Amino acid sequence: MRGIWITLEGGDGSGKTTQAALLQEWFEAQGRTVVRTREPGGTEVGQLIRDIVLHHRGEIGARAEALLFAADRAHHIASLVRPALERGEVVIQDRYLDSSVAYQGAGRVLGADEVRGLSMWATDGALPDLTVLLDLDPAAARARLDADDKPFDRLEAERADFHIRVREAYLALAAAEPDRFLVLDATLAPGELAARVRERVAALLG
Amino acid sequence: MRGIWITLEGGDGSGKTTQAALLQEWFEAQGRTVVRTREPGGTEVGQLIRDIVLHHRGEIGARAEALLFAADRAHHIASLVRPALERGEVVIQDRYLDSSVAYQGAGRVLGADEVRGLSMWATDGALPDLTVLLDLDPAAARARLDADDKPFDRLEAERADFHIRVREAYLALAAAEPDRFLVLDATLAPGELAARVRERVAALLG
Repeated sequence: MRGIWITLEGGDGSGKTTQAALLQEWFEAQGRTVVRTREPGGTEVGQLIRDIVLHHRGEIGARAEALLFAADRAHHIASLVRPALERGEVVIQDRYLDSSVAYQGAGRVLGADEVRGLSMWATDGALPDLTVLLDLDPAAARARLDADDKPFDRLEAERADFHIRVREAYLALAAAEPDRFLVLDATLAPGELAARVRERVAALLG
Repeated sequence: MRGIWITLEGGDGSGKTTQAALLQEWFEAQGRTVVRTREPGGTEVGQLIRDIVLHHRGEIGARAEALLFAADRAHHIASLVRPALERGEVVIQDRYLDSSVAYQGAGRVLGADEVRGLSMWATDGALPDLTVLLDLDPAAARARLDADDKPFDRLEAERADFHIRVREAYLALAAAEPDRFLVLDATLAPGELAARVRERVAALLG
């Protein structure tokens, strides 16, 4: 039995948390040990970094932001994800590499190749077995977030055209690596989405 | 009148703070505006990063550490150093690029080229006009630090052979870029060291 590593990608409001919970239940019903984690902030050090990136009031430049996310990632993969996979566990992770490329790379002034290269250096080239992209029109995501009551963080508060560029970047990443990605329409019912994720995971396991 | 950027390098206990203060006095006596700063921690964001790197109790891997220093650097150069130089001011900075290469590169498991490349990406290739290396035998530095009463941080507490490798790395960096570096014997009297620094700075200004 070997570990399996699944990452969830998509804008805020696309339903990643719900799908992660449903997938965790499914694995646990089969007796697998599941580690639920996230980036940024999957570790104690990562929480400190996440606070800086998402909640600092002053301006943080694009390179500093990308380096902070990469530092969080390096620590997270080395101290939490790799050890869990080596123990044969299931890692279900909210956001990874593709978030950085979509948000910092395509969404900002840095090139996608630069940001990807930084992440690959940070993790010594670690890539998940499966990446589920919950694709959602930014206007629909906005409506979902507005229905919640929580305050927006620094990235959520970016303008609409930024979120449109992020979505396009995500779809381009998925198109470039179809074997790693499963792209789903996030407006489908949660149960339907979960079934499609399980189908793909079952194929990976079998 | 253009800005001038001077960095000070050397182990803890080598006298960087004293030399920075003497050099600041000298510039100010000539009517120049001086910005005294340091890495890590020259900005508010950098202070938060510095706290993570130097004072976190858990293990932080070599790549995560290098990325955190690079993030601090990217933010520091973009938000503080470049603007001051563009205003024609003097920047006197405690530690920069060469500290990362010496401590993370040669001192740890990462290669010097990797660490240097990361820093150069972080700052878009910014290099100081002059780097003063206060060279000191690690045993002598230890004796100076022991005479102080303050607690050691995470890097200061490393073993003696680490500090020997750091010193060797510093001297190799200076040998590779003699135009940028001024190497001084840190056991000389502070006034004598200050005179030698001023002599080199005067040549740069003239």
